Amino acid sequence: MKTEAEVKDFIENGEKKYFSNLTIDCAIFGYHERQLKILLAKWKDLNGYSLPGGFVDRKEALSQAANRILKERTSLEKVFLQQFYTFGDSEYRMDNYKKFQKKFLPANNWLRNRTFSIGFYALVDYSQVTVEEDILTEAYSWQDIHDMPKLLFDHNEMVEKALNSMRLNLYHQPIGYNLLGDEFTLPEIQSLYETILDKKFDRRNFPKKLLSLGLIKDTNKVRNIGQHRSPKLYKFDLKKYKQALKEGMVLGF
Amino acid sequence: MKTEAEVKDFIENGEKKYFSNLTIDCAIFGYHERQLKILLAKWKDLNGYSLPGGFVDRKEALSQAANRILKERTSLEKVFLQQFYTFGDSEYRMDNYKKFQKKFLPANNWLRNRTFSIGFYALVDYSQVTVEEDILTEAYSWQDIHDMPKLLFDHNEMVEKALNSMRLNLYHQPIGYNLLGDEFTLPEIQSLYETILDKKFDRRNFPKKLLSLGLIKDTNKVRNIGQHRSPKLYKFDLKKYKQALKEGMVLGF
Repeated sequence: MKTEAEVKDFIENGEKKYFSNLTIDCAIFGYHERQLKILLAKWKDLNGYSLPGGFVDRKEALSQAANRILKERTSLEKVFLQQFYTFGDSEYRMDNYKKFQKKFLPANNWLRNRTFSIGFYALVDYSQVTVEEDILTEAYSWQDIHDMPKLLFDHNEMVEKALNSMRLNLYHQPIGYNLLGDEFTLPEIQSLYETILDKKFDRRNFPKKLLSLGLIKDTNKVRNIGQHRSPKLYKFDLKKYKQALKEGMVLGF
Repeated sequence: MKTEAEVKDFIENGEKKYFSNLTIDCAIFGYHERQLKILLAKWKDLNGYSLPGGFVDRKEALSQAANRILKERTSLEKVFLQQFYTFGDSEYRMDNYKKFQKKFLPANNWLRNRTFSIGFYALVDYSQVTVEEDILTEAYSWQDIHDMPKLLFDHNEMVEKALNSMRLNLYHQPIGYNLLGDEFTLPEIQSLYETILDKKFDRRNFPKKLLSLGLIKDTNKVRNIGQHRSPKLYKFDLKKYKQALKEGMVLGF
């Protein structure tokens, strides 16, 4: 939606195009230089923050809807979205949505129906992406996950659940290919995992595990960062990396 | 639904009570004596097998709906159901459901609408539970997961996804308390994990890991199963077990 007229048409006639009870919300995590953040939308009218989201089109496949919604609201494309949970239990989902919508919408409007929301998450390098506002959104911002404000709707619960799912999956999927450069030092990849998982790992066992699984390999190069300081550079073994992604693995640090 | 009249009313008027586009399907895994099975329903009219499922009531919380549906269809109660995935992408979900329903239902019937299905799984000891048929079901059977027939709808995809989710979660949740007796030998608990995860673990490292995490402890008793054969008996440390369930853990075997 780009114009006021489109927003008006969406409110009046959206139910023809969209399922009134099915929305999608996207938890986009961003990693950069030892910081883990999440993308929040500041709404123009609601005086608060939420995850970017929208309604499922009656003719769309579910994953297609997720990609379309993320693109329409934030301009982000080609992000690998992973479904993590469907929300339909909380007070907001059962009852509060009615009170909430009452303030803004005429009686019997389709947007006052009860909704179930299907959550998707992604992990990107936030220094590499550009996010643009749509007409409903005053601004987007990357918020440190250790400093979350109170969000609108049930979105704090969503963020928590998305974070748990992403962290659980990290133990079974090698990550970092899109988040680190082509070549990296062992402390850099260890920081990536430590930041995202919010844990400290043993300085010896961590790289040993990655090397023994064959996920990373020595490039035989070093980075010169000062006298007596030239750490070795490693890179991902793409073949083994893709195999591990496909088959799953267990990183028991 | 217990009578033909109730089924007729469901087909004619069900949309007043249920969301026409939201179903729940339950993948109930059963473990007993080194076998992992799944509960399948044989339909009376469709000549095929599926998971037990049903529609979400407009006034029900999502997890409440899952428990109600499982109970109505199979008589199973107090089963811990875990949500794993929402299905809305496959050919069946996008298009084939129309062809499929055409055979049985009048035009414009609400049951011919497109559906999204929210999958829940559980893991039970199948020797301890009794399953009863409802009016739509000819019989329920526990099917070995290594010998799956072609199921109705997109339910083979559901079983695969449920199995993957359950296995992934097993690395982060101690299981077995409801699946083994109060006291068990190390080979018994190892068999449980090996059967469910469909993997072999090292005979030394596996119990070492469980013991070092404090999840199981020595009872100082043995089981006499023959001359020179009296394996030690262990039990779960319930306090640590519950703590691990709550906090999550990583079983890196």
